Amino acid sequence: MAQENLSAVLHSQGDLRLEDRPIREPGPNEVLLQMHSVGICGSDVHYWQHGRIGDFVLTKPMVLGHEASGRVVKVGSAVKHLKVGDRVAIEPGVPREMDEYFKSGRYNLSPTIFFCATPPDDGNLCRYYTHSANFCYKLPDNVTFEEGALIEPLSVGIHSCRRAGVTLGSTVFICGAGPIGLVCMLVAKAMGASQVIITDLFPERLKMAKELGADFQVTVKRGDEPQQLAKTVGDMLGAPPQITIECTGVESSIQSAIYATRSGGVVVLVGLGSEMASVPLVNAAVREVDIRGTFRYCNTWPMAIAMLASGKVNVKPLVTHRFPLEQVVQAFETTRQGLGIKVMLKCDQNDQNP
Amino acid sequence: MAQENLSAVLHSQGDLRLEDRPIREPGPNEVLLQMHSVGICGSDVHYWQHGRIGDFVLTKPMVLGHEASGRVVKVGSAVKHLKVGDRVAIEPGVPREMDEYFKSGRYNLSPTIFFCATPPDDGNLCRYYTHSANFCYKLPDNVTFEEGALIEPLSVGIHSCRRAGVTLGSTVFICGAGPIGLVCMLVAKAMGASQVIITDLFPERLKMAKELGADFQVTVKRGDEPQQLAKTVGDMLGAPPQITIECTGVESSIQSAIYATRSGGVVVLVGLGSEMASVPLVNAAVREVDIRGTFRYCNTWPMAIAMLASGKVNVKPLVTHRFPLEQVVQAFETTRQGLGIKVMLKCDQNDQNP
Amino acid sequence: MAQENLSAVLHSQGDLRLEDRPIREPGPNEVLLQMHSVGICGSDVHYWQHGRIGDFVLTKPMVLGHEASGRVVKVGSAVKHLKVGDRVAIEPGVPREMDEYFKSGRYNLSPTIFFCATPPDDGNLCRYYTHSANFCYKLPDNVTFEEGALIEPLSVGIHSCRRAGVTLGSTVFICGAGPIGLVCMLVAKAMGASQVIITDLFPERLKMAKELGADFQVTVKRGDEPQQLAKTVGDMLGAPPQITIECTGVESSIQSAIYATRSGGVVVLVGLGSEMASVPLVNAAVREVDIRGTFRYCNTWPMAIAMLASGKVNVKPLVTHRFPLEQVVQAFETTRQGLGIKVMLKCDQNDQNP
Amino acid sequence: MAQENLSAVLHSQGDLRLEDRPIREPGPNEVLLQMHSVGICGSDVHYWQHGRIGDFVLTKPMVLGHEASGRVVKVGSAVKHLKVGDRVAIEPGVPREMDEYFKSGRYNLSPTIFFCATPPDDGNLCRYYTHSANFCYKLPDNVTFEEGALIEPLSVGIHSCRRAGVTLGSTVFICGAGPIGLVCMLVAKAMGASQVIITDLFPERLKMAKELGADFQVTVKRGDEPQQLAKTVGDMLGAPPQITIECTGVESSIQSAIYATRSGGVVVLVGLGSEMASVPLVNAAVREVDIRGTFRYCNTWPMAIAMLASGKVNVKPLVTHRFPLEQVVQAFETTRQGLGIKVMLKCDQNDQNP
Ligand SMILES: NC(=O)c1ccc[n+]([C@@H]2O[C@H](COP(=O)([O-])OP(=O)(O)OC[C@H]3O[C@@H](n4cnc5c(N)ncnc54)[C@H](O)[C@@H]3O)[C@@H](O)[C@H]2O)c1
Ligand SMILES: NC(=O)c1ccc[n+]([C@@H]2O[C@H](COP(=O)([O-])OP(=O)(O)OC[C@H]3O[C@@H](n4cnc5c(N)ncnc54)[C@H](O)[C@@H]3O)[C@@H](O)[C@H]2O)c1
Ligand SMILES: NC(=O)c1ccc[n+]([C@@H]2O[C@H](COP(=O)([O-])OP(=O)(O)OC[C@H]3O[C@@H](n4cnc5c(N)ncnc54)[C@H](O)[C@@H]3O)[C@@H](O)[C@H]2O)c1
Ligand SMILES: NC(=O)c1ccc[n+]([C@@H]2O[C@H](COP(=O)([O-])OP(=O)(O)OC[C@H]3O[C@@H](n4cnc5c(N)ncnc54)[C@H](O)[C@@H]3O)[C@@H](O)[C@H]2O)c1
Ligand SMILES: [Zn+2]
Ligand SMILES: [Zn+2]
Ligand SMILES: [Zn+2]
Ligand SMILES: [Zn+2]
Repeated sequence: MAQENLSAVLHSQGDLRLEDRPIREPGPNEVLLQMHSVGICGSDVHYWQHGRIGDFVLTKPMVLGHEASGRVVKVGSAVKHLKVGDRVAIEPGVPREMDEYFKSGRYNLSPTIFFCATPPDDGNLCRYYTHSANFCYKLPDNVTFEEGALIEPLSVGIHSCRRAGVTLGSTVFICGAGPIGLVCMLVAKAMGASQVIITDLFPERLKMAKELGADFQVTVKRGDEPQQLAKTVGDMLGAPPQITIECTGVESSIQSAIYATRSGGVVVLVGLGSEMASVPLVNAAVREVDIRGTFRYCNTWPMAIAMLASGKVNVKPLVTHRFPLEQVVQAFETTRQGLGIKVMLKCDQNDQNP
Repeated sequence: MAQENLSAVLHSQGDLRLEDRPIREPGPNEVLLQMHSVGICGSDVHYWQHGRIGDFVLTKPMVLGHEASGRVVKVGSAVKHLKVGDRVAIEPGVPREMDEYFKSGRYNLSPTIFFCATPPDDGNLCRYYTHSANFCYKLPDNVTFEEGALIEPLSVGIHSCRRAGVTLGSTVFICGAGPIGLVCMLVAKAMGASQVIITDLFPERLKMAKELGADFQVTVKRGDEPQQLAKTVGDMLGAPPQITIECTGVESSIQSAIYATRSGGVVVLVGLGSEMASVPLVNAAVREVDIRGTFRYCNTWPMAIAMLASGKVNVKPLVTHRFPLEQVVQAFETTRQGLGIKVMLKCDQNDQNP
Repeated sequence: MAQENLSAVLHSQGDLRLEDRPIREPGPNEVLLQMHSVGICGSDVHYWQHGRIGDFVLTKPMVLGHEASGRVVKVGSAVKHLKVGDRVAIEPGVPREMDEYFKSGRYNLSPTIFFCATPPDDGNLCRYYTHSANFCYKLPDNVTFEEGALIEPLSVGIHSCRRAGVTLGSTVFICGAGPIGLVCMLVAKAMGASQVIITDLFPERLKMAKELGADFQVTVKRGDEPQQLAKTVGDMLGAPPQITIECTGVESSIQSAIYATRSGGVVVLVGLGSEMASVPLVNAAVREVDIRGTFRYCNTWPMAIAMLASGKVNVKPLVTHRFPLEQVVQAFETTRQGLGIKVMLKCDQNDQNP
Repeated sequence: MAQENLSAVLHSQGDLRLEDRPIREPGPNEVLLQMHSVGICGSDVHYWQHGRIGDFVLTKPMVLGHEASGRVVKVGSAVKHLKVGDRVAIEPGVPREMDEYFKSGRYNLSPTIFFCATPPDDGNLCRYYTHSANFCYKLPDNVTFEEGALIEPLSVGIHSCRRAGVTLGSTVFICGAGPIGLVCMLVAKAMGASQVIITDLFPERLKMAKELGADFQVTVKRGDEPQQLAKTVGDMLGAPPQITIECTGVESSIQSAIYATRSGGVVVLVGLGSEMASVPLVNAAVREVDIRGTFRYCNTWPMAIAMLASGKVNVKPLVTHRFPLEQVVQAFETTRQGLGIKVMLKCDQNDQNP
């Protein structure tokens, strides 16, 4: 394949470059994909701005991008379920070892997992990308490439709501109306939640949340008293929420999450803040409010595709900006400034449609 | 209270009479209700036609009716959460003893439970009815009396889908498009099922199912081969359904249910047929297809009200016929003939609205 | 009943008196019990020393005691499952309202629950005590009164291990070898845990833990580094424990609990410390280590009796001291000084056997 | 490796031969094992006697044996967790595809799984055998090779009891005291069951069951009335069992299993009988007695090793006969005649110890 493979490579903190990279031949269980749409995630921007996230430190140039879809252009010898021309969504995490986590269906926890754009593993914000065929999922005709790319953040919402146990008639409190808070809301609604209340610091974000279906919105101010906010939430719903999904990582918001949740309920921690947090653990413990973290997702792509194909979840309005791959820095800058919700990079020069 | 209490009393097989019955004063934990809307259930008709259902045999006159809503007109001395004038939906099963089932949250299994219109316990197809206040649930203003009455069959659907584990993206096969099959379908959809396929012998029932949201319909003929039907179902869905909810009780349909369900999935038995059934148990066992029965419901009214109030489930189209209480025999006859879906009896002479 | 009813009454902080109190006639669903054995709990001592625990404040004289067993001497008119002469263990928490918690089998979370020796509800450290018959459980002949009384702390262990999901082959880390840590250990073993490691500040407590079956013991020193302790625990077990049951309430111990637990595992918070705690929440979240509190117990007495009757759990060695009711202050002083494990008060003058 | 590889090869129904077979070189993720102990399973004998089990038909010569342990003699290039000399237990089922079952932790249901001695896949009743390293588990020094081989049937017990939800204080009814019934009993006890009652046609089998720890034994006669047997079981336990584990596959025994089980309980189908069975489904359904099959096992070896190493389960008495590999036909004949419980074949000429 003598084609150019323009790629968005992060060389070091602040140094994001577009450059041509070799195209990797697919192994027997892999497929080579022509990339179509890649969403920018907060973590991509964080690596760009800081060169690290926690213990994951950039030590050599790395291709960014992990919210992606593309078209199969070459198929490994052992691959049976995909063929050239298939449109696929990419699950970015691929377990490397058949350890206890993989064997028991929680491969997201496997410590040796490959994950796109987490150092040192390359991502897929490029023209051509090779991936494990088992973690590429064929898209039905009525699901667009951009919807396919959005399955990645949607999966965070699915995994969170699943761990939260959202079900028919659940009342759900979501802290933070960023992309992750919004997908959690969409999924909670699709799983039968009767009422979703959502908070944010910024009214624009809450406006979007309302348009996407949030039943109640609360504008939070820095310094608001967590117990007071908890009370407000309960008052608006008529009773404390059974489930709270924390999508900010901010300490005071975690405190509100615990205080607000009904006895016997669940707080899911999606947002990731500072290592240590001071929280009202006794309040949670004696009311048996469980605190469950989430790390990415597992086993979500098939159900996400089923939901998108059946039209039960509409993620299209999340895409607020589009840029061709050539304008990657401008695109990243847009996300950094918190403009809109999801910025899409279009990697196929001949097809920049959704 | 010197008011007349017209009641639909079954004296013996085939002998359904309207007669005046004394109004029972509410005890400390009870409320007296002026009945508004009462749906007719297959079981009411069955008692009328046969004088018994299985081991439950009519041995003395019994008021029929258990799908009901009304207005509080008198409140027992210890009741705190209800007041005169409140509109309520009635949960017909009230546990009598604090046994292991009640203590562990499965009170529907309590062998000594009181249940409206199950011999020897009287039902509520009458003008005035006294019930445990703890099993009367206040209706919000935007939920009608008829929706309140429909919470009873809806609860069968909720309990069934909950035991089935329906969740986001589930594919669900429902056998039988009677009132119970239809509420199971509505609930499955509300819990996130991506595709629901439904069968029946009668095209009219499937037409209704389609209007209410079923994705696929299959007209079954008596004598159809269960394995063939199972194959058809899988072919239409693109893969075998993860969950099957059997709502006919017919042996061949239970067989189809087992054959059709994906390995690792669940068959829920809602329909009740003959005591012994010949089924492909080894097929279910080696594919770990679990078989779970359901008996009525528990802990469903609050979430049903939440769903109705939020507009996430629309049960209104289920009501196809209405009769004033005075025409109870005609109403029963309509149900017996399988006309329409749900027949409502209007018990309040001054308000026959939905 | 013209009998004297000597009772251990806490009048105010530090003021514990023995005095004669009236015997309350049993209501229709109650039984009157002649008390036999009552264990002293840390909470009894805490009320005595501080006059309060958190929001529960002593505002009027209260009988102490809630780990108790006795013999039925009078039976309410509606009671069917007990008769005069039956030996029973008492579950001290009795739900007062049929709220959502009670209906769904988690009555320990009911905010209006009656609970022995939690202000303002009287306990049963006395000669005669009246209790809901539904929360008195008949003891088989081969279970002693003291074993019956020990079902209360044992229930804390059962509820904790059940919420932890202890099962065959689980590796379990228990923080703190007080009475609660020890019952958690006994129960974890009985539920199939293959290895239990336990910590404490005091070698005597660990010696007892070893005698009762702990596989590994670690003596902790104040100031020990939580991450270092976590590493030690994992090294001793050969791999991080799947489950940690925190029974001290101390902040640094909670930190160790989180760091020590295997990814995908569970930390159960039984110990109750200060309202706010600073903990490594992100570490827990990204490894999906769930944090679950426990509040007392529900639905544990029947299985505890089954275990004791079958000899699968031996709690007898927990009783290290015995005093007649008349020496209640001396008994409390023994517990306060942390001598031994469980101090039993013998309330029946004619039978001070175990 | 120029060594002879004596193997027990089934050529066709009734034609079991010992012959030399080539030794297969381990691939990168495999290990070559010198076999030590291999137990004979009912299925091995069934293939020998009938040439098939259900849809699995012998169409070419196949090595028998799947309950096995051995020593690593050669290690594939990519294997990290094993080295030459390690003693290992072999999990005979190895998923071939990363399908939905494997990804979600239920790989036993994967339709394309490799399984030792299930046509057309060869087993390991031979001198040298090559297997996926990921499905070989290192044995601790205090676990013998025979215990290692017995992990296979023990795993059937673990998987069954896990699916049954056996926990502290469970009362368990086991139908059939063959090897599988006995391991279910051992595991149920280790998981905290307070009482286990077991049936069989043969008093010798029940005698063994009693020695291994069964609390109650019932000798069944062909023609016994299922409802009567169910009553006897409940009477002996004092209440109906919460869990029944059916290990015969016989229709009347499945009927007894359903009738006997307490409302809200579980019947696990381990035994495999004829395709269609006539059973009291309505009785199960209206009492919400769940019916769950089991197919082999998944994720059991690590916990089984933990239990054996900690001495919590003693499987050694199950081995009643031993034969050197050379006497394989005699060994099979012993199993066929139902003599003893488990027959072990010793494959290492230099070490025929347990
Ligand atoms: N656990 C996982 O696997 C996982 C995966 C993806 C993202 N995340 C985390 O989820 C979080 C959200 O991601 P995102 O992409 O939506 O980020 P984002 O920064 O776009 O959104 C966070 C939102 O929270 C709002 N916010 C901040 N403080 C608040 C407060 N006190 N109360 C209410 N709202 C407040 C912000 O205004 C913002 O709109 C991040 O912490 C991210 O690291 C976790
Ligand atoms: N388990 C419970 O707690 C519970 C509660 C309510 C009702 N039920 C049972 O649920 C069942 C359904 O109740 P309903 O009120 O809807 O009854 P219904 O008779 O109105 O509906 C049954 C439907 O099944 C159809 N049917 C019959 N044979 C069929 C076949 N072979 N394939 C497909 N469809 C077939 C019929 O045409 C009919 O439309 C009944 O058996 C009833 O006893 C159980
Ligand atoms: N959640 C509930 O429902 C419930 C019920 C009963 C008791 N509790 C709580 O459980 C806890 C234990 O109860 P108990 O009666 O065993 O108390 P206890 O005080 O007798 O035992 C606590 C033990 O922890 C040890 N300890 C203290 N700091 C430690 C550290 N850093 N590391 C290791 N060990 C340490 C102490 O030496 C002591 O032996 C208390 O906090 C109590 O309030 C909770
Ligand atoms: N589901 C699975 O993955 C799995 C795995 C292994 C074995 N199995 C099945 O488990 C069953 C038991 O295996 P096994 O090796 O112990 O077989 P086995 O034949 O040695 O034992 C069965 C026992 O059941 C007794 N029995 C027969 N009829 C009975 C009756 N009516 N009541 C009580 N006892 C009766 C027999 O006397 C015998 O002792 C077999 O059906 C086997 O196919 C299933
Ligand atoms: Zn992302
Ligand atoms: Zn009904
Ligand atoms: Zn206590
Ligand atoms: Zn076997």
